[in-house]
Amino acid sequence: MLDMDNVKNYMTHSLAVAYNGKPFSGFARQPGQLTVQGELEHALELLFRREVETTCAGRTDAGVHARAQVVSFDISPDELRDRTLESLARSMNALTHEAIVVRSVDERELGFSARFDATEREYRYFICVEPAPPIFLRDFSWHIPKPLDVEAMREASRALIGEHDFKSFCMAASAVGKPTCRNVHEISFAQEEVMGERAVVITVKGNAFLHSMVRTIVGTLVMVGRGQRKPEWVADVLQACDRCAAGENAPAAGLVFWNVSYDGVRDHI
Amino acid sequence: MLDMDNVKNYMTHSLAVAYNGKPFSGFARQPGQLTVQGELEHALELLFRREVETTCAGRTDAGVHARAQVVSFDISPDELRDRTLESLARSMNALTHEAIVVRSVDERELGFSARFDATEREYRYFICVEPAPPIFLRDFSWHIPKPLDVEAMREASRALIGEHDFKSFCMAASAVGKPTCRNVHEISFAQEEVMGERAVVITVKGNAFLHSMVRTIVGTLVMVGRGQRKPEWVADVLQACDRCAAGENAPAAGLVFWNVSYDGVRDHI
Repeated sequence: MLDMDNVKNYMTHSLAVAYNGKPFSGFARQPGQLTVQGELEHALELLFRREVETTCAGRTDAGVHARAQVVSFDISPDELRDRTLESLARSMNALTHEAIVVRSVDERELGFSARFDATEREYRYFICVEPAPPIFLRDFSWHIPKPLDVEAMREASRALIGEHDFKSFCMAASAVGKPTCRNVHEISFAQEEVMGERAVVITVKGNAFLHSMVRTIVGTLVMVGRGQRKPEWVADVLQACDRCAAGENAPAAGLVFWNVSYDGVRDHI
Repeated sequence: MLDMDNVKNYMTHSLAVAYNGKPFSGFARQPGQLTVQGELEHALELLFRREVETTCAGRTDAGVHARAQVVSFDISPDELRDRTLESLARSMNALTHEAIVVRSVDERELGFSARFDATEREYRYFICVEPAPPIFLRDFSWHIPKPLDVEAMREASRALIGEHDFKSFCMAASAVGKPTCRNVHEISFAQEEVMGERAVVITVKGNAFLHSMVRTIVGTLVMVGRGQRKPEWVADVLQACDRCAAGENAPAAGLVFWNVSYDGVRDHI
């Protein structure tokens, strides 16, 4: 932990981390569980021979993947000794679970927080729309074999853009007594082929997200895409401020924490 | 097995099959090993209560994947009874390993052979060129973290186009006493992003391929891409007619049997 009497002796660093979420009980450390944060902090503890506290840009749930998670922590030059940032990344990769990759270690301004300094977060959700189950996208998508009306989903998504109270899209227990306003900057749709398998990819960008907000947005839009609800319904869901008004959570496997910006700079991968 | 006295009572069918090669000891059945053919024939045996012999478009090695393998077999209308082709596909998916997906079952002309009637086969090889190991492409690529000179690889590949004796590119034991001429129609290179991870994708098309020929072609071209050999060297390798002249086999995980044509029609997916 950062010794505040000695703050001049510390430097803030960040890790750019990718992971396959499948083996983990989410990002946040939990006693007795395999977690991404637990793996990273254990490796830092082995390297620096003390507990090192980390902060991340976005706490992902069990099974959710990351392409570019950012994790910040403080270390003194004495502790770094002659280690380069490259050798630190290599050591982290050697000491963590094989489903985690530390892509880089970067020096930051003292006091930089991966969480509080983030200005935009981007998630992508992959829906595999092949009639038969996917092979390559198996662990990285929600398989919906019946056709989706993507135009209706696009129309429905417009109600969610901008600053709103997203209480209807937040896991109920997590919303109690906390602010639930967020600003969604963009929801866009692309039809892509990933290794020859057709997918609808939904990109969601915003200043920050509530617990399971992206998965609830996707689950709600998919009800529209399946024709179970009209596009206008999504505005009613938003207004209800009640989790029960929205669709089911989309499965974790399809969600990837894709990118995060600091002062508009997406510089960490 | 097809009863030749009773041939009018049989119909030829084909399966379009995708698989993740990782758990399998290759396509071809082998006693006591988990193989794709073994899984398919076991399922057909359960469905039709007799041994059903199958023929495939391309026998892939252990660890090699397929997006569109084609497998043919003969069945009588009596045996099919009131099963539709769709219900047959569903039953095959229920009875085979989860890493196999039967995308469709199609009726063919009597005597159609997935192997002998194929006019062109297409393989794709995925090289992940990210500095750090991939997360999404982990099981579906060869990771080469240092830059590859793709232009040099493209130049080198031209020597392989057309009809040649590819003995240098065939696993030595498999070449003994067998014809080793093949016609390579195309070798092309693309730089793609797969789930945000940069890859060089090498497409190889030809009438047919020798044992481990695509992987040896890729391993040889990568030596040029790494600057270990000049592009002109590949013509010498071809002329040598000796497996020792070529590069190493590229790893199985990067190779996908991508497509196969019958009379110019790529109609099976």
